[in-house]
Amino acid sequence: MSTTVWLEKEIKSQPEILEGLLRQGYTAAEAVTERIRKYDPAFMVIAARGSSDNAARYAQYLFGIHNRIAVALATPSTITHYGAAPRWSKAVVLGVSQSGQSPDIVAVISEARRQGALTLAVVNDTSSELAQKAELCMPIFAGREKSIAATKSYTNQLAALAMLSSALNHDPQRLHALNDLPALISQCIDQQADMASALEEYASKQHIVVIGRGYNYATAFEIALKIKEVSYIMSEAYSTADFLHGPVAMLDDRLVVMAVAPAAFDFVEMQSLIQYAKKQHAKIIAISDNTKIAVMADTVLAVPAGIPEWLSPLVMVVPGQIAALELAKMRGMHPDKPRNLSKITKTW
Amino acid sequence: MSTTVWLEKEIKSQPEILEGLLRQGYTAAEAVTERIRKYDPAFMVIAARGSSDNAARYAQYLFGIHNRIAVALATPSTITHYGAAPRWSKAVVLGVSQSGQSPDIVAVISEARRQGALTLAVVNDTSSELAQKAELCMPIFAGREKSIAATKSYTNQLAALAMLSSALNHDPQRLHALNDLPALISQCIDQQADMASALEEYASKQHIVVIGRGYNYATAFEIALKIKEVSYIMSEAYSTADFLHGPVAMLDDRLVVMAVAPAAFDFVEMQSLIQYAKKQHAKIIAISDNTKIAVMADTVLAVPAGIPEWLSPLVMVVPGQIAALELAKMRGMHPDKPRNLSKITKTW
Repeated sequence: MSTTVWLEKEIKSQPEILEGLLRQGYTAAEAVTERIRKYDPAFMVIAARGSSDNAARYAQYLFGIHNRIAVALATPSTITHYGAAPRWSKAVVLGVSQSGQSPDIVAVISEARRQGALTLAVVNDTSSELAQKAELCMPIFAGREKSIAATKSYTNQLAALAMLSSALNHDPQRLHALNDLPALISQCIDQQADMASALEEYASKQHIVVIGRGYNYATAFEIALKIKEVSYIMSEAYSTADFLHGPVAMLDDRLVVMAVAPAAFDFVEMQSLIQYAKKQHAKIIAISDNTKIAVMADTVLAVPAGIPEWLSPLVMVVPGQIAALELAKMRGMHPDKPRNLSKITKTW
Repeated sequence: MSTTVWLEKEIKSQPEILEGLLRQGYTAAEAVTERIRKYDPAFMVIAARGSSDNAARYAQYLFGIHNRIAVALATPSTITHYGAAPRWSKAVVLGVSQSGQSPDIVAVISEARRQGALTLAVVNDTSSELAQKAELCMPIFAGREKSIAATKSYTNQLAALAMLSSALNHDPQRLHALNDLPALISQCIDQQADMASALEEYASKQHIVVIGRGYNYATAFEIALKIKEVSYIMSEAYSTADFLHGPVAMLDDRLVVMAVAPAAFDFVEMQSLIQYAKKQHAKIIAISDNTKIAVMADTVLAVPAGIPEWLSPLVMVVPGQIAALELAKMRGMHPDKPRNLSKITKTW
C-alpha cells in the first residue's frame, strides 16, 4: 500500500485540524450559547447518524454532567415514517452531521423549527441543507474529509460540543483545557508506532467487543464502528453495565475484548469485567493509561497520562482509529474504500 | 433435552401471562396516567438495562407517536459514577426493571424524586426497592420468571407500556386492541412449529445481524439479545438507517441478516437493504407477514397478518425468542443456563 491512504493521512492530521477549530470556533460557540442561555431549554434533543450519533452519545454525558441538561437522542422515523413528532417546543434541538445532507436529520430540524424549538446545526459543510434549515449553526472546521470513514470530523465534532458546553457555563477553565488537546492527540499518535506488530495476532479474529462507560461509552461505539467499516471484523460496543446484563454470556476464548479505560476514572466494574473475561480465556486489548487495567491486558495501546476524563474521548478514540486502519491493512482491505459505503449516506 | 426447559415453557406461557395483565393491570394504568396527566411533563426519562432497556426503546416510539412525549433514555452513570444528574424536575421519570433490584436504576429514580420529578416504577416484583422508591407503580403481572433470559416479562413490559400510553390519551379503541394480542401471540407460537428444521443451516453461523425500524427497532434489539444470551452466536441489532451509515460494509456471504418487517408498514429502505444484502450473498431470514419481503428471504418465520403496527412488537419478538431457543439446542447449550449470567444483574 504505497499510494496515499487518506484515512491514515486524516488520522494524523487531527491535531492540526483541531487547532483550526480552537482558533476559529470560539466566536460561533459564544454566539450560539448566548441564544441557548436565553432560551433556557427544559431538555436537549440530538438527531444524528453513524459517527455523528457517537458524538451525540458523548454529548449526553457532557451536557448532562456539566450543564445538567437531559439529552434525548431523536428517533427520526417518528417523523419520516409515522408523521408524528414529539413535542419539542421546550427543547433545544441539535442536528449533528458531517455532510449536513441526510434527509432524516434535516426532517427533525425542520419539524423542531416549525414547533418553535431552538434549532442548531453542528456541521462540517456550512452550505448544507441542515445548516440552512437550522436557526443556529456551529461549524466544526474539519475541512474536506476524503476518506469514507470519519476520523477528523468526529474528533472536531466532540471538540465543538465541548466548546459549546464550556461556553454555555461561562467556564474559562474548561475552555482553556481544550487547548491542551492537539498536543495530547499528537503524542498519542506517536505512541501507536508499533500498532501493526501489537495487533498481528488479532487480524484473523472474527469478533471484537469494545467496552467503555461514561464519557467513553461514545468512544467504544466509535471504535467498534471504525473496525466494522474498514476491517469488516464484526465489532460491537457496550457499556460495562449493559454487557453484564446479557451479552456477557458470549464470552469465550474466541472473543477479543477491547477495554477503553482512562485512569482518570477507576471503574471497579471494568476491572472485574476484565478479570471475568480472562477467566473465560478471552483476549484483552486495553486502551488505557490505567496501570491496574494495563497489567491485566494481553495488549496495551497506550495513551498519554493525565487527560481530564471529560476530554479523554478525543484522545482515547485515536488508538482505535489506528487499530481499525492497521487491521484493515493486515486483512488486505483498502481502508479508504469500504465496500458498500459512500461518503454521504442519505436515509429517510 | 427431555427435562423441562423453562425458557420454552415461559415463551409458550406468554398468551396466558398477557391475559393476566390485561385483566389486572387496567386499574393501576388508570391511576398512574391520571397523575401523569396532571403533572403534564415536558418530557419522559426512562432508566432500564438489558431486555427492559429494549422495552424502553419501544416506549420511545409509543409515547413519541401516540402521546407526543419526547423520551430520553437515562445514562445512570451520570449519577452513580459522576454524581451529577441532569435536571429532571419537568419530566416524568420511569424505572423499568423485572427484578426492580439493579442499584443504578434505583439511583436514577431516587435522584429524580429528590428533584421533584414524577417517578414511576414499571416492575414485576412490586416489593422491590425500585417499586418502593418510586412515587407511582405499574406492576406487569408476569409471575415468577425462572429462566434467566427474559421472555414473558418482556412482552408484559411492552403491554404495560402500551396500556399506559393508551390510558394517558383516554383512547378506548387502542386499549381494546390490546385484547387481541393473546390470541395473536398464541397463533404466532403455533406458526413456529417447524423452527428447528427451518434454522438448521444457521446453527453453525458466527454472526447474525438483526434489522428493525420504528416500533420494531426494539424487537431487533431484543431478538439479538436473546440470540447472544442463549445460543452465544454474536448478534447485533441495527435500524435500517443506522446499518446503512457504516456497518453495511461488513456484508458478505458469512453474514446472516434477520429482518423484522411487519406488512403494516412497508419500509422501502428495508427492501433495498435486503436486495443489497442478497447481492453480497448474505443469507436472509425474514420475520414478516409482508409478501414483498418474504419472497426475497431464504427463510421466512411467519407471523399472523393484520396486527396493528404499534402492537406488532409484542408478536414479532416471539419467532425471535423461539429461534434463539432452537439455535441454543442445536448448538448443544442449555437454554436455561446461559454461562456467566444470573437472573438478577446488579450494576452501579
